[in-house]
Amino acid sequence: MEEQLSLFYGLSFLTAVIAFAFAVYLYLWIKRQKIVNPRIEAVAQLIKEGANTFMRREYRILGIFAAVVAVIILILLPTPIWRGSAVPNIAMALSYLAGTVLSAIAGKIGIMVATLSNSRTAESAQKGLKPAFLVGFRGGAVMGLLVVGCSLFGVAAVLMITGDTTILLGFSFGASSLALFAKAGGGIFTKTADVSADLTGKVELGIAEDDPRNPAVIADNVGDNVGDVAGMGADLFDSNVAAMASALVIAQSLAGGQFANISMVFCYAILGLLASTIGIATAKVGKNGNPTHALNSSTYVTTAIFLVLTASATAFFDGFSWRIWGAAATGLLVGVIIGITTDYFTDDTKPIVQKVAKASASGPAFTILSGISYGFISALPAMVGIAISALVAYKLCEPMGTGYAIFGISMAAVGMLSIVGMIISNDAYGPIVDNARGLAEMGDLGEETIRIADELDSAGNTVKAVTKGFSISAAGLTVISLLGAFMSETNVALAEAGRELITGFDIMSPTVFFGTLVGAAIPAVFSAMLILGVDRNAQRMVAEIHRQFKSIPGLKEGKPGVQPEYGKCIDIATTGALKELIPAGLMAILSTVAVGFIGGPLAIGGFLLGNIISGLLFALFMSNAGGLWDNSKKYVEAGNEGGKGSEAHKAAVIGDTVGDPFKDTAGPSINTQITVVSLVASLLSSLFVAFSIF
Amino acid sequence: MEEQLSLFYGLSFLTAVIAFAFAVYLYLWIKRQKIVNPRIEAVAQLIKEGANTFMRREYRILGIFAAVVAVIILILLPTPIWRGSAVPNIAMALSYLAGTVLSAIAGKIGIMVATLSNSRTAESAQKGLKPAFLVGFRGGAVMGLLVVGCSLFGVAAVLMITGDTTILLGFSFGASSLALFAKAGGGIFTKTADVSADLTGKVELGIAEDDPRNPAVIADNVGDNVGDVAGMGADLFDSNVAAMASALVIAQSLAGGQFANISMVFCYAILGLLASTIGIATAKVGKNGNPTHALNSSTYVTTAIFLVLTASATAFFDGFSWRIWGAAATGLLVGVIIGITTDYFTDDTKPIVQKVAKASASGPAFTILSGISYGFISALPAMVGIAISALVAYKLCEPMGTGYAIFGISMAAVGMLSIVGMIISNDAYGPIVDNARGLAEMGDLGEETIRIADELDSAGNTVKAVTKGFSISAAGLTVISLLGAFMSETNVALAEAGRELITGFDIMSPTVFFGTLVGAAIPAVFSAMLILGVDRNAQRMVAEIHRQFKSIPGLKEGKPGVQPEYGKCIDIATTGALKELIPAGLMAILSTVAVGFIGGPLAIGGFLLGNIISGLLFALFMSNAGGLWDNSKKYVEAGNEGGKGSEAHKAAVIGDTVGDPFKDTAGPSINTQITVVSLVASLLSSLFVAFSIF
Repeated sequence: MEEQLSLFYGLSFLTAVIAFAFAVYLYLWIKRQKIVNPRIEAVAQLIKEGANTFMRREYRILGIFAAVVAVIILILLPTPIWRGSAVPNIAMALSYLAGTVLSAIAGKIGIMVATLSNSRTAESAQKGLKPAFLVGFRGGAVMGLLVVGCSLFGVAAVLMITGDTTILLGFSFGASSLALFAKAGGGIFTKTADVSADLTGKVELGIAEDDPRNPAVIADNVGDNVGDVAGMGADLFDSNVAAMASALVIAQSLAGGQFANISMVFCYAILGLLASTIGIATAKVGKNGNPTHALNSSTYVTTAIFLVLTASATAFFDGFSWRIWGAAATGLLVGVIIGITTDYFTDDTKPIVQKVAKASASGPAFTILSGISYGFISALPAMVGIAISALVAYKLCEPMGTGYAIFGISMAAVGMLSIVGMIISNDAYGPIVDNARGLAEMGDLGEETIRIADELDSAGNTVKAVTKGFSISAAGLTVISLLGAFMSETNVALAEAGRELITGFDIMSPTVFFGTLVGAAIPAVFSAMLILGVDRNAQRMVAEIHRQFKSIPGLKEGKPGVQPEYGKCIDIATTGALKELIPAGLMAILSTVAVGFIGGPLAIGGFLLGNIISGLLFALFMSNAGGLWDNSKKYVEAGNEGGKGSEAHKAAVIGDTVGDPFKDTAGPSINTQITVVSLVASLLSSLFVAFSIF
Repeated sequence: MEEQLSLFYGLSFLTAVIAFAFAVYLYLWIKRQKIVNPRIEAVAQLIKEGANTFMRREYRILGIFAAVVAVIILILLPTPIWRGSAVPNIAMALSYLAGTVLSAIAGKIGIMVATLSNSRTAESAQKGLKPAFLVGFRGGAVMGLLVVGCSLFGVAAVLMITGDTTILLGFSFGASSLALFAKAGGGIFTKTADVSADLTGKVELGIAEDDPRNPAVIADNVGDNVGDVAGMGADLFDSNVAAMASALVIAQSLAGGQFANISMVFCYAILGLLASTIGIATAKVGKNGNPTHALNSSTYVTTAIFLVLTASATAFFDGFSWRIWGAAATGLLVGVIIGITTDYFTDDTKPIVQKVAKASASGPAFTILSGISYGFISALPAMVGIAISALVAYKLCEPMGTGYAIFGISMAAVGMLSIVGMIISNDAYGPIVDNARGLAEMGDLGEETIRIADELDSAGNTVKAVTKGFSISAAGLTVISLLGAFMSETNVALAEAGRELITGFDIMSPTVFFGTLVGAAIPAVFSAMLILGVDRNAQRMVAEIHRQFKSIPGLKEGKPGVQPEYGKCIDIATTGALKELIPAGLMAILSTVAVGFIGGPLAIGGFLLGNIISGLLFALFMSNAGGLWDNSKKYVEAGNEGGKGSEAHKAAVIGDTVGDPFKDTAGPSINTQITVVSLVASLLSSLFVAFSIF
């Protein structure tokens, strides 16, 4: 069976290379699209420079952070260096660095392509919906292919070289820790700019969203890129790697059939990437077609192709189990269903968004109360869905032998994330067309072009809700299997120490319970820190915008030739985001370390459980409430409940402002927070076993 | 040792009677205070009638509900009636009814005293702070003495007569199920009226809070009574009974020393009531003293007396353990500390409230975002505190033998709730002086009297935050011990069925995990349903107020002799609250039943855990955020950040409106929701064992 595994290593590299090649092809295709309008080119250049400046400064800080962590790893992990050979420690540190570097590269190239595609999408929108959609979508697809290619390549390389899944956790932690900060930093940047631009532009002056007079407008567009493209890419790179890593850790711990099981993990990842590639290649919208429909149907196509391909592989390869296939299929299908229920709560053609819009007519307090309430309720279907998929996967695979049940759950996560290439493409499409809409307005491309850009943008918003529900759920399943990975890592350490193994985490144990209560509070505190970061930062930026309106003559009135100082706003967003991104992430990591050294592995088991549960709850609530407010504002702006300028509109804008950091800063960062915490726990398990107080 | 228990039964009845006698004495003292002002008498009469009407209609509905449940219990519990003797079933049904009736009586008398005290407090305020404080406080004290007396009397009577702690769970469930609906119904009533009165009065017309022109003003004052007096009384009656019941269930299951352990539960409850009585009797404020200080110091006095008395009892009685005393003391001290940290987040002399007020100057979105963020953070200290007290109590009592560890946790809950008589007094003081403030304004008692009433009211608000944090934490510890009670009930059923016993709830079991995820979502959905109820109801009432202002000539302008139709608003609040109170409570109960019959005891174990964790998180978040917004509005109104009428004030009012249903409807109802769910689980455990699908 070892040959089988070698085959899959080879196929992994091959598929990754195919994906890279396809990405390069798409990149060159996008680059060939011409930009004629000099105004657009100039503004696009500003956006690109702003994004690059932020990324450079962010990566510099994260580089220092990664270097420090690498040194700590070198000294302490997998076992303290004074206790044995240094080789595994060096491997672990290098593996960690590889994870951070690949994550950074994926983010960096994503930004490059997105800032290339936005202007070209705006230009193409002059020719019609069809070509503009294609540019926007393909821009996103480059990111999707790249991220999934990098994760497949990285995981296969690390495991092939070291043969040790614990080292793989180091790689995953590298990806996660970078994602945590990239997501938080990008999220704070983007919402600082968005909230400030809205409050000063839309609310105070009553000018359009992307009016070039607004000093924050470029920062807002930069934010879409650094938050939604780079941050989201890092997030899904992290989820994907973590799902594979935890499945591989558990696969290696299984008695008998490891090779087939490890092969299966790679096989599913390969076929998922292939399915996504096919889905991407075939996605298009008719001349007067519906872009939302095009994005969704390509997701369904990808799902179907993946299920057929994996079923064929299961029939063909020795040792591949139909039960595991069932677990993966369940994960994937539940993910799709969760996406659809999320859509119900955030789509403005459905009743919930309309109810919130109606409540807005009675004032902003009702906008907030109803949005929060439906946000709370929206968490239920996803929670139940995740619970059911975990239960089904477990029960399906339990008869295969000890440990297979948890392996089943990890394969449900792998299954759910198999189409992640497609998901990222859809997700990255959003900020590109959002930027394109801004460019169309700033470049004065005319009403029809703005209308087309608007339609593309609206599709991006709708699909974003679906992909967000999907990625939160995937993170949920992944961390459940990471809980399994943590247990097997701990048991390895306990066995080495000659101590009794853990068979589970009993909630009647006060140590487990202690961990659970503390773990449950962490996502709340983490979210609060990020939101307060946006809050503080936006207040600084609003002050700067007011200063510019006051001190630059003719700016407010739109005198030709008068330009705001865009750079100042970009600078505030950058500096603020970089200042605020570290504390929240560090709090999450350090609280894990503290609980581990106080209560040992049992407390950490509870801590992870509490963290997963409340993390899922808060992430779902905040993402959905945010999407709900955003779309109910758009619904009012479309002329309902009094339309633009009405009391309902003012209230809806307040709702949207509250929702912004919910859905784009805190909500999606929680994903990464729970993954990081789980990985930290697994990596440090041997230290917790050795050094905990209780 | 049986004689020792008989002694404590006797002492329980005696202490309850002493408390009742003292309550009657205070009641007669209050009644002797004269009302001179006819206007006040008339308005007080309106409030009283409104409250009585609501209570009558609410109890009619709850009577039907209780009758249906009693029939179900008669047929099914403790074991289906077709399987054995009917006697235990009759006892269980009667015990359940006794729980509901005592809860209703406590609520009813509380309302009676509160509506008697409010006008007399207002009158006394003309004479000064000192006498007014005394009337308000003693009004609250009647409620406190009554509730604790009833719970001690009821628990002792049920256990003495039946000797069966399972039947006691029926009594506790009676108290809980009534509390669930009383709290939800009262909470919806009070916030419907409060929100509507504020929005139409303060915000739209710019008139004072209790301006008699506002048609909702009487409903608002009625709401204080039915929500904060009757609802809160039912809530704490429920928590207190549940804490005792779960401690007694566990005590009875302990091998050896049951009698001493059962005696100890009663002894602690007796001494808690005595300590509270002494605290109440000695509470007073100096002529120019500070009422907040008076309320808090009487709490500390009660705490100290309780600790000394129980330590003496532990030294004196055979079989009383110092370890158990330590557990109870830990619970109580942690409760007090949690109260103090809650105060930090909600007191307007502390930085958090001021920060939120400052954020309000940038607009309502920032009020909401900062309030939500600090609300999230405020949950952390209480969660950690509860975790630590459970851990300490467990570890302290673990060496005493099997089962003692959980008994220790239950005694920590009993300890925390021991001073509940004092807590209720302080809590019920709030709505009485709030009403008094309204009456002083409506009765034109002059500025000095209103100022005094304001000072009393502000003390009520501050202390309320503390008591709320306290009662949420107590509920948290209680339900942890109910988890233990559930496990012992389940094992009794499993043993009878000849099946393997449960030793715990392992979170790696997918059934437990499934339950945990679903259970965690319930408090979110429950809160959302209540908030949406207030939302819908307030929209109806706002429409009615607008109608009155439009159609009653001279009302808006305050023409002498023109009165609004107060009754219409009371009617809307009543009908709406009664319509909305059932679904949320039923959802919580039925979801427990559904999970139990699907997943069996293991799923329920997880369900309870998820429910407790997210329930605590949401309850703390919502109560604290609500208190924070309320006080930051008051802080702005005191002249800070621009004072009344400024943009900051408008934003702060929106924050307060959002916070109203958070802190007075949803937040404190979650307490009861988690208790009810835990009791339902324990009661139905034998059915889940017999009939579950998995």
